[in-house]
Amino acid sequence: MQDKFLKIAINEAKKGLHEGGIPIGSVLIHNGKILGKGHNKRVQDGSVVLHGEMDALENAGRQPASVYKNSVIYTTLSPCPMCTGAILLYGIPKVVIGENKTFLGAEEHLRANGVEVVVLNDEECIAMMTDFIEKRPELWNEDIGF
Amino acid sequence: MQDKFLKIAINEAKKGLHEGGIPIGSVLIHNGKILGKGHNKRVQDGSVVLHGEMDALENAGRQPASVYKNSVIYTTLSPCPMCTGAILLYGIPKVVIGENKTFLGAEEHLRANGVEVVVLNDEECIAMMTDFIEKRPELWNEDIGF
Repeated sequence: MQDKFLKIAINEAKKGLHEGGIPIGSVLIHNGKILGKGHNKRVQDGSVVLHGEMDALENAGRQPASVYKNSVIYTTLSPCPMCTGAILLYGIPKVVIGENKTFLGAEEHLRANGVEVVVLNDEECIAMMTDFIEKRPELWNEDIGF
Repeated sequence: MQDKFLKIAINEAKKGLHEGGIPIGSVLIHNGKILGKGHNKRVQDGSVVLHGEMDALENAGRQPASVYKNSVIYTTLSPCPMCTGAILLYGIPKVVIGENKTFLGAEEHLRANGVEVVVLNDEECIAMMTDFIEKRPELWNEDIGF
């Protein structure tokens, strides 16, 4: 059975896809409750900073360090260097990743800095990104700076 | 004499201060021309992702990797882990830093990943942040996740 918070992140990714965007979603959980959720906004907002994780953090709003330190961030895809940096900046201690088969982000950098990294390799996440990368390779490459 | 692009980043920082925000500014230069400039928007937009460098990247808009690879980013202050990650994601090869006396960011991580890092330790940048941190320590701590 799918993790309930991963499911929320996947729903965000699907929302992004329906908007014509890149299907990556994320949710920030604090003490078991949703603090913010979001999805990649490159196409929708012309944004180069609002990856899924960044959008979830942005939607969670300004929080004190004490809140981040008791939070977990879920993301459908392995976090890129930028999202990894944001996780480290705010001291979020745990990241749950939908999959890292289609893209391997900076997971080692997270681990090296003491962040707990859980990779689920969820079939739905893998299928969603595999399909998207096949259909929109240029857009995907732009999003990861290739 | 101050570097002309650093001066633009400083003007962005001052703009932020006049808006009641955190005085950190940045400018992205491509082949000697301004591609985007920006400043920290934590207070003004309630944004946790728009640090100075991120705002400059956002204002530069969607760019192909070939543009980033021939760009230099100027920032008034040593880049935090998030901004460092964004610089690495987009493959910007050079960072010019106004100062790293009041805050030392992830410069070693930039260098370890092949980015050229130039630290100017400009007196105006140091004075601006020293004054701000003294006046608004809580706001500053929030911005760097402390």
